[in-house]
Amino acid sequence: MTAPFASLSQFRAVLQALPGADSTAIAAAQERNIQLTKPPGALGRLEDLAIWYAGWRGTGKPSLDAPQVIVFAGNHGVTARGVSAFPSEVTVQMVANFKAGGAAINQLAKAFGARMDVHALDLDQPTADFTAAPAMTEAEVVAALACGWQAVDPSADLLVVGEMGIGNTTCAAAMACALFGGEPGEWTGRGTGVDDRGLALKTQVVAEGVALHGGTDPLEVLRCLGGREIAAMAGAIARAHALRIPVILDGFICTAAAAVLAQAAPGALDHCVAGHASAEAAHRALLSKLDKAPLLELGLRLGEGSGAALAIGVLKGAIACHSGMATFAEAGVAAG
Amino acid sequence: MTAPFASLSQFRAVLQALPGADSTAIAAAQERNIQLTKPPGALGRLEDLAIWYAGWRGTGKPSLDAPQVIVFAGNHGVTARGVSAFPSEVTVQMVANFKAGGAAINQLAKAFGARMDVHALDLDQPTADFTAAPAMTEAEVVAALACGWQAVDPSADLLVVGEMGIGNTTCAAAMACALFGGEPGEWTGRGTGVDDRGLALKTQVVAEGVALHGGTDPLEVLRCLGGREIAAMAGAIARAHALRIPVILDGFICTAAAAVLAQAAPGALDHCVAGHASAEAAHRALLSKLDKAPLLELGLRLGEGSGAALAIGVLKGAIACHSGMATFAEAGVAAG
Repeated sequence: MTAPFASLSQFRAVLQALPGADSTAIAAAQERNIQLTKPPGALGRLEDLAIWYAGWRGTGKPSLDAPQVIVFAGNHGVTARGVSAFPSEVTVQMVANFKAGGAAINQLAKAFGARMDVHALDLDQPTADFTAAPAMTEAEVVAALACGWQAVDPSADLLVVGEMGIGNTTCAAAMACALFGGEPGEWTGRGTGVDDRGLALKTQVVAEGVALHGGTDPLEVLRCLGGREIAAMAGAIARAHALRIPVILDGFICTAAAAVLAQAAPGALDHCVAGHASAEAAHRALLSKLDKAPLLELGLRLGEGSGAALAIGVLKGAIACHSGMATFAEAGVAAG
Repeated sequence: MTAPFASLSQFRAVLQALPGADSTAIAAAQERNIQLTKPPGALGRLEDLAIWYAGWRGTGKPSLDAPQVIVFAGNHGVTARGVSAFPSEVTVQMVANFKAGGAAINQLAKAFGARMDVHALDLDQPTADFTAAPAMTEAEVVAALACGWQAVDPSADLLVVGEMGIGNTTCAAAMACALFGGEPGEWTGRGTGVDDRGLALKTQVVAEGVALHGGTDPLEVLRCLGGREIAAMAGAIARAHALRIPVILDGFICTAAAAVLAQAAPGALDHCVAGHASAEAAHRALLSKLDKAPLLELGLRLGEGSGAALAIGVLKGAIACHSGMATFAEAGVAAG
């Protein structure tokens, strides 16, 4: 479908009209959960996950059969400042790798039965260097949001969004700092692996960007400090909410995209769970601002949606237990 | 095969002769890992897991296709002291539930493509109350070890062992206290859900058991304070080591079984990874004694092998990335 917005103000209105979860389905899932053959609460967070998922899918006994992974790619003018350990050419090379099935996210999507799509957004047209000008015009950011919005398969029952974009941890750090305040150094990490000197430079670049574009509203933060793949992730997460498709958030950059939505409209991320806490230290701080507890913490710092894709397994396990287990009555087990 | 031991001293000799991992395969896996299309270390613990798994499977590019989950069940005389929130009858009822496919572990085994076997060990003959006598005779504990040894499928490429046995967190607490010292209260938790009064009683029972049987060697700790399903888990973990089949450890009771092996023979758990840290607080302490970092921490406290089975997904993801990803050379990606 065509995206139902042609400007940031229209996108904001879409966010403010997003639906909530189905409270009847939540109640049915809670009722079922207490009847399953296990001590109350013995499946820990798996129980909460299944009930949350049930609420978004609108049934007390849901299944998870059609997860979709979408990887968005974009290039960043701020790489001219030398903020990444890798050259920008790697973005297009990795897109080819995604399309050929050779990247980590391809293996994880396959391992967990997910459909995978790749959208490269104008890789030959990097965004503007945000230390000199807004990264994108309004038309550019709206086009990227619309790309994400349209990329979601309405028949999916779970969404993971990932990214590839040399330089984009710098964007995410600047966005987080502009959205939540604090010192640029608190939000800036090593990304794919810059050294101490690179980290100091990156922090300086983040500070310059925030000084130039901070203090504006969340959607302007996205436009001025973000990037095309980041806006596309935000658009896809919003569309999933509109479709009541639950989302597993990935790492720092994905979470920065999601944070824009949360700051623009309370409850915009109620359909999202945090897949993991990455090794990028600011990711944990950002999840904390969003009141999201990560499912996994395995030191990943790859992006691509990899940590979220790995967490599909946890969610699949939670739903398999919830919807597949016998009740005490069915199994003839004493309930204690 | 018939178990190659007919006494605890023969079992000890088996433990002391267990093989190590294949260092050539480890080197090959390490070499492959650094060539994969990702920044060095960006897959965090997934990289370590894949290399560890490669070492035990004897190939630098392993696959994980045939996981086996075995649930052992046993009954415990110590339940006469009122240490559990559930009656002993639940053990046999849950075995029927496992066989009918209705328990949590059935759903998780199915979700992660694992074969599942159930072994109920003399449920009509509970062990002796360890506050009055040794839980088992030497013939009984050796028979249980042999049951576990024989239950492992030599064609499996991963093993998860789980348990069901009303009262067995009391056994595990007593074993941990006898093996590692400390106060009985530090090792005693609420199990399936005893109240404060139940917890105080359980702690007292653990203290009595340790006072009566502590200070002996690890295999005697297993005999005097353990149970048939706990000994069977130990036997299965040892057999997996002999077959170089990697093991994912489950919760507190599984880890107590494993701890017996580690205390009896250094390196006996080198083929094991900790699947999760459970909500039973002493589990984390026990994992720390064994120098094992959990893969998951989701508040599970069910047993059955459930936490370990959930971690099969993480290991599958790790191996899928390691063995399926393209190298920089194959994908034409700049290595930075």
